[in-house]
Amino acid sequence: MTAARSRRQVETGEIVIIGIRTLPEVKPGDDLAGLISAALRRENRELRSGDLLVVAQKVVSKAEGRIERLRAVKPSELARSWARTLGEDPRFVEIVLRESRRVIRMTERALIVETRHGFICANAGVDRSNVRDAGTVMCLPVDPDRSAQGLSDRLRKLAKARVAVIISDTFGRPWRLGLTNVAIGAAGLSVLEDLRGTRDASGRKLQGTILAVADELAAAAGLAMKKAAQIPAVIIRGAAIALARDRASQLIRPASEDMFR
Amino acid sequence: MTAARSRRQVETGEIVIIGIRTLPEVKPGDDLAGLISAALRRENRELRSGDLLVVAQKVVSKAEGRIERLRAVKPSELARSWARTLGEDPRFVEIVLRESRRVIRMTERALIVETRHGFICANAGVDRSNVRDAGTVMCLPVDPDRSAQGLSDRLRKLAKARVAVIISDTFGRPWRLGLTNVAIGAAGLSVLEDLRGTRDASGRKLQGTILAVADELAAAAGLAMKKAAQIPAVIIRGAAIALARDRASQLIRPASEDMFR
Repeated sequence: MTAARSRRQVETGEIVIIGIRTLPEVKPGDDLAGLISAALRRENRELRSGDLLVVAQKVVSKAEGRIERLRAVKPSELARSWARTLGEDPRFVEIVLRESRRVIRMTERALIVETRHGFICANAGVDRSNVRDAGTVMCLPVDPDRSAQGLSDRLRKLAKARVAVIISDTFGRPWRLGLTNVAIGAAGLSVLEDLRGTRDASGRKLQGTILAVADELAAAAGLAMKKAAQIPAVIIRGAAIALARDRASQLIRPASEDMFR
Repeated sequence: MTAARSRRQVETGEIVIIGIRTLPEVKPGDDLAGLISAALRRENRELRSGDLLVVAQKVVSKAEGRIERLRAVKPSELARSWARTLGEDPRFVEIVLRESRRVIRMTERALIVETRHGFICANAGVDRSNVRDAGTVMCLPVDPDRSAQGLSDRLRKLAKARVAVIISDTFGRPWRLGLTNVAIGAAGLSVLEDLRGTRDASGRKLQGTILAVADELAAAAGLAMKKAAQIPAVIIRGAAIALARDRASQLIRPASEDMFR
């Protein structure tokens, strides 16, 4: 991209979402930031300071070796009993329970839990797709905020650019169908932006408008990821993200304010 | 934009989010599609077939005259009583109740209802900001799907382009802080995309991955809208949206499947 194009973007306020298309299959122990940098070189792209990189949880989990073999799991009595209700593999339910700190709802259709991180989602984010071996499942990163910070730090050295990072995953919503991408890890940006101090076009103060910007950024990246399963990393450019030391865990509503557990 | 730029977009799979910056203050009875077309001409932009237009609820509601005067409202006894608990204007609570078909939760902090459309959100989407006159509030469009269809139909004539339309509003989420933009009205696109038939990079079938694409598109547009309150309409180009006759009401989870009311 030329400097002229870049200036034009700033002038017009365009936001561009760029899928990284040539990332290879990620394996445990891989240097994910290094793989992303190499893919960008292949694609004649570069990261620039102010860019945001959104990385799908599945490749972060893979690189971090968060893969469990079902064969190695001995399900508890509780897991066996719930697996019958859910029509699930008891070893899968056992792994979900180990990744959880609380069960929120269980029906024949779904097991909604609070993960050890505090996220409320189905199956503690444990995933049976996106793994090559059908006998394995993939868990969420142990500390996705730390994973995001690690990627940001390493990209700063490799790409010589200050890049904010979001790690995204697809979560369901209680009252709306379908999944949307949300931020489960973040580094280098403000995850919530309080617009209450700003004024709308008519000069009145906006009320109650704290935007979950990191989740909107994750959702925007999800649009590029859905176009092909081979796009697990996405650059968002021109989004005027606010630099900050926030973590995605700040997006979790405190239990004391939660009306729906 | 040049044809070369346009071809390049398709090649690389970039998605571009373009805020429409010169829309004037919208007033009841205005031809919103006409105002958007005129703004695009001023900005040397054009709508193209395949583009998606996301319009903020506030300008749709304004154009449709969904403004209520607090002075004209006589609050019921229930509204008076709840207003005391909520620390709210009883006339505001009365309007919220009129826009609702069911109260889901009420605490000192929030009034969460099911709107007449079936959306579950705070205050039935009734908004006290974004109105010029402090003595008025703004309600959601009566039928946001019909509003979206009307905009799409009219833009087809004015812009000679087949443009999908989403009407967006910011809703809260029970377990995550902050608001995100979701689709409350839609025309011309598939609002949910079932990726279960597709395969991931390793050739395994993806499970449980129905994406709420319309909500991810609304969130992406929200990134451009947050940059300035004067951007209530946004073009999303290159998102490979699936053409369909879906409505945003299809995103509402049926009460029978709802575990969290």
